[in-house]
Parts: sequence; C-alpha cells; structure tokens
Amino acid sequence: MSLLVIGTVAYDSIESPYGNAPDTLGGSGTYFASSASFYTPTQVVGVVGADFDLQELDYLRAQGVDFEGLEVDADGKTFRWGGKYMEDVNQRETLFTDLNVLETFSPKLPESYRQTDIVFLANFAPQLQSQVLDQLSAPKFVVMDTMNLWIDIAMDDVKAVLKRVDGVIVNDEETRMLSGELNLVAGAKKLLEMGPRLVICKKGEHGAFLLSKDDFFSIPAYPTTAVKDPTGAGDSFAGGMMGYIAATGNSDFATVKTGLAHGSAAASFCVEEFGVGRFKTIDKAAIESRVEKIRGYTAF
Amino acid sequence: MSLLVIGTVAYDSIESPYGNAPDTLGGSGTYFASSASFYTPTQVVGVVGADFDLQELDYLRAQGVDFEGLEVDADGKTFRWGGKYMEDVNQRETLFTDLNVLETFSPKLPESYRQTDIVFLANFAPQLQSQVLDQLSAPKFVVMDTMNLWIDIAMDDVKAVLKRVDGVIVNDEETRMLSGELNLVAGAKKLLEMGPRLVICKKGEHGAFLLSKDDFFSIPAYPTTAVKDPTGAGDSFAGGMMGYIAATGNSDFATVKTGLAHGSAAASFCVEEFGVGRFKTIDKAAIESRVEKIRGYTAF
Repeated sequence: MSLLVIGTVAYDSIESPYGNAPDTLGGSGTYFASSASFYTPTQVVGVVGADFDLQELDYLRAQGVDFEGLEVDADGKTFRWGGKYMEDVNQRETLFTDLNVLETFSPKLPESYRQTDIVFLANFAPQLQSQVLDQLSAPKFVVMDTMNLWIDIAMDDVKAVLKRVDGVIVNDEETRMLSGELNLVAGAKKLLEMGPRLVICKKGEHGAFLLSKDDFFSIPAYPTTAVKDPTGAGDSFAGGMMGYIAATGNSDFATVKTGLAHGSAAASFCVEEFGVGRFKTIDKAAIESRVEKIRGYTAF
Repeated sequence: MSLLVIGTVAYDSIESPYGNAPDTLGGSGTYFASSASFYTPTQVVGVVGADFDLQELDYLRAQGVDFEGLEVDADGKTFRWGGKYMEDVNQRETLFTDLNVLETFSPKLPESYRQTDIVFLANFAPQLQSQVLDQLSAPKFVVMDTMNLWIDIAMDDVKAVLKRVDGVIVNDEETRMLSGELNLVAGAKKLLEMGPRLVICKKGEHGAFLLSKDDFFSIPAYPTTAVKDPTGAGDSFAGGMMGYIAATGNSDFATVKTGLAHGSAAASFCVEEFGVGRFKTIDKAAIESRVEKIRGYTAF
C-alpha cells in the first residue's frame, strides 16, 4: 500500500561526546523516509528553504522516495535545530530551534497523494496535522506523533487529531503528559480512551510497547552499544514500523507487532552514526537480520 | 535441586501514595523465599532479633521453606528499614536503616545446607557473601546481588565475590556504578569481564535483560497497573528466577531465560500489595499463567 509522511526536512547541528555534526541533513520526515523507503515507496510532505541543497535527498530518491509534496519556499530558510548530547546520550539539551520556513507553512497535498492508504503524521503543529487529514480521501491507517510543546500549548488541537487517527506514537514523557498518569501502561490505557485503537509508547534504550483494548506487546531496543547520535531514532522507528505495515498491506495487531520489531531494528542502525549516515551503508536485509536477532533475544 | 538464600529477614515501614504499612514483614531473604518456594524448598540463612515474631514465617514454612539457618540473636533487635515512595513509585526515599542484629552477624551454615547446589547471595556485605561461599562444598550455580553502598565502600570485596559466582543480578544504577559505563549493555559486558558468565540487569518497570558472552535476552515487566508497593520486587524477581532454575535442575542459557520470565511474573505480583501480602493470595499456577501471558506479549 502507498505510504505518506508529513514531517520536517531540516538541517541539524549536533554535538555529542563522539563528535560534532554541524548543518547535517535531518528532520522527522527525512529520518522516517530513510527507514520506511527500505520497505515501500514513500511520499514526503514538508517544506525547505532556498538554502536547502536538494541533492542531499538523492539517496532517498534512489530508494523510491517521492518529494513532489516537498515545497521549496524561495523566500525562506530551512528549519534548523541544534542539540547537544551529554555523556549519557539519553540526556540532551536543545541549543536552538529556528523554525524559519515552518512559521508560515501550510501543507498542500499534491493530487497524486490524496488517495494514499497509510499515513504518518510526524511531530508537527496539530492544526497542520488536521489540515493533512482534511486533504486525504480515505486513508486506511493513520498514526500520529506529537511532542511536549503541543501538549503544553495546544492540548485541545492534539485531542482533536487523536480522535481522527488509528494509532498514536509517543515517548514515555509524552505518555505521562497526555494522560496525567505516571504508570506508563495506565497512561497508555487512558490514551486509548482519547480515540486511537493503538498506542505505541517509545522508551528509548528500553524499547517500546504497543497497547490495544485487548492486547499488549513489548519489544526491546536492539542491544547496540555503538550509540553515537540518538537524533532521529524515534522517527526511524516509526518509519520501519509504518514501512513494514504499508508493505504488508494490513494493520491488524499481529502485523503492527512485527512492525514494531522492524522499527526497533531500524532505530538501532540510526543511532550508530551522526544524522542519516548509517542508513546510507545498510540495506533492507541488514534490518531484517536484526529483526531476526530480536526475535531470538525475546523468545523463551 | 536444593536452593539456598542468604538474605535479610526484616521489619519494614513503608509509606506510599496508596497507604502506609508500619513494621511489616520484609527483607531480601523473605521476599526471595516467598517466590522461590512456589518452585522448590528453600533454605534461608539470616538473622533476626528477640523482637521478631517467628510465627510471621508460618506461611513460608507451609510452603517448604527451611529456617534452620535463621539465627535468633536474643541480645539484639531485628533489622528495620523505612522507606517512602513518591507519587511516581519508581522514586523512593530511605527514611531510616537500623542495622541492629546485622551489625554483628556472621553467617554460619547448618551442616544440612553445605551440599546445596543453587545459591542466591542477596544484597549483603560482600565479606559475608564470601563467608557463605567458603562454607559451601561445591555449589553448581551461584548468583549474587549487591547495592550502591558496597560498591562505594567495599568495591574490592565486591570484585572478589564477582570472581566466585556464576551470575550477578544488578539494577541499572548498580550496573553503571560497577562498570563505569553509561550504556547498560556495554556496562553488562564489562561485568562479564569481572568474573560471572551471566549478568542479569533489572530495570524496574522496563523489565530486565540477561547477557552472556555469546547471547542476549530481554524480558518485559508484566504490565500490571496496580502497583502499590515496589519493595521487594527485585528479590521476588530473583526468587522466581532461581526457584525455576533449581526446580529445572540446570542453568544453561535457555533455562535461565525462562527463569527470567518466572521472575518477572513473580515480581509483578509482589508490587500489587504492601509487603509480602500478595504472595499469600496466589499459587504457582497464578505465576505460570502470567509467564504464559508474557510469552504472548513478546512473540511476533
């Protein structure tokens, strides 16, 4: 089935104990497409500025990513984010966030995107997530992401999107903020009452879990010790998961479970290099090999 | 095979958002035996004071727990610990620690304990853990626990015990302290270099993992949302794991993996009531039922 992501295409400046990567290709849409496109052609909706080097996306075009929905705003500059990871790479500090072209962005889906079946709304202003849903004719499976900022300043809009999606993917902090519950499983249960039939809770090095009304599934993080740059791990996780679901063509609980395993494997590659570097050195078989290892690591 | 634990038998005073439990039966040896004795008769080495009501252990005697190794120090008072859990029950504050009889305790194993095959050294001064090992003739599988205090003040003694055991069971903080590594898997790898062939890393609500030189295994926490009192969860985990291993009679990687699942299930019951209360309301079949649920929650 066809797959669409609305997300950012950005330049990140990253500092970590393992080195620095200034002005490196990043953004939720980029990371998502980097892993999803191993599974299925992926359509990207987003915006960049006049300063963006479109050739940086060639590795994705070669993998079947469709950038017809990527607007180039000739009057603006590309979204830029700077972050610094501590010696414990689970800790990070945001150094700057320059929204630039995102300040005035209003997503318009190309005609060819409107019939798309599987949709991922990466972390974005919830009003824009709604605008994307308005332009889709009949998506079969929609998953949304969000972040603490929107939960703080636009909770009602976040709740409105929650009512329109099949699944929500959130990290532990967001689960607690959205639900008001400290226990993550109790929090995820509350999120189910807010609309989606599936909640995916990401826990970084501790993996992720999937909850529906009747079922539960837990997946560990692949135990890589070569973590250099966690930027984009969550979006790569979502890309592997949604790519697998789109390629499989259904979204029942068993398929989404296996999707989480593919997401976990994809995310484990992401963190092993700065930016999207690691995705340029692997293929789908490499991800599948880690999926099989995870299967072994969890079977008893 | 026969199973022995050296651990504390104590009175705990617990405060949590779900209520208070003053002077309630606790201690690492008690929690360990509470879950291990569902699988196999368990021998307890420890000490209590003249103030201890031995009838409190009747529920364990009825389950085949052997207290010949539990010394009653007529001149002393029982070890007492007080703790307060925050609204996020993963956070706790120690209110007091009264060592009492533990200050002068020197473990002496009854003759009938010296041939024991499977041994758990619960968190205890490492010098005393060594004394126990000195009195065993030829144990087949020994696992040790420890805590931040001993790593801080008696690291050399902890290292000496590490060299003599088959496995070490530590939480995330202890893994980082003992190894000097922030990444838990990298830390566990370092612990393998310090002696044991197996490292079990407990991560509370995120479950646990098991690492050997050649293999890895991850188990989630059973997703209970009814957490009232996390005291003793780690020792109940160890009890379920070691009880299963002793009952099975071998300690290969596959058996220990399944042992972790039993530990996870046992720990999930422990936290659902204050003290050891929940253990008095369940049977082995209840634990096994959760083990099978965990199997379903991790298979894809």
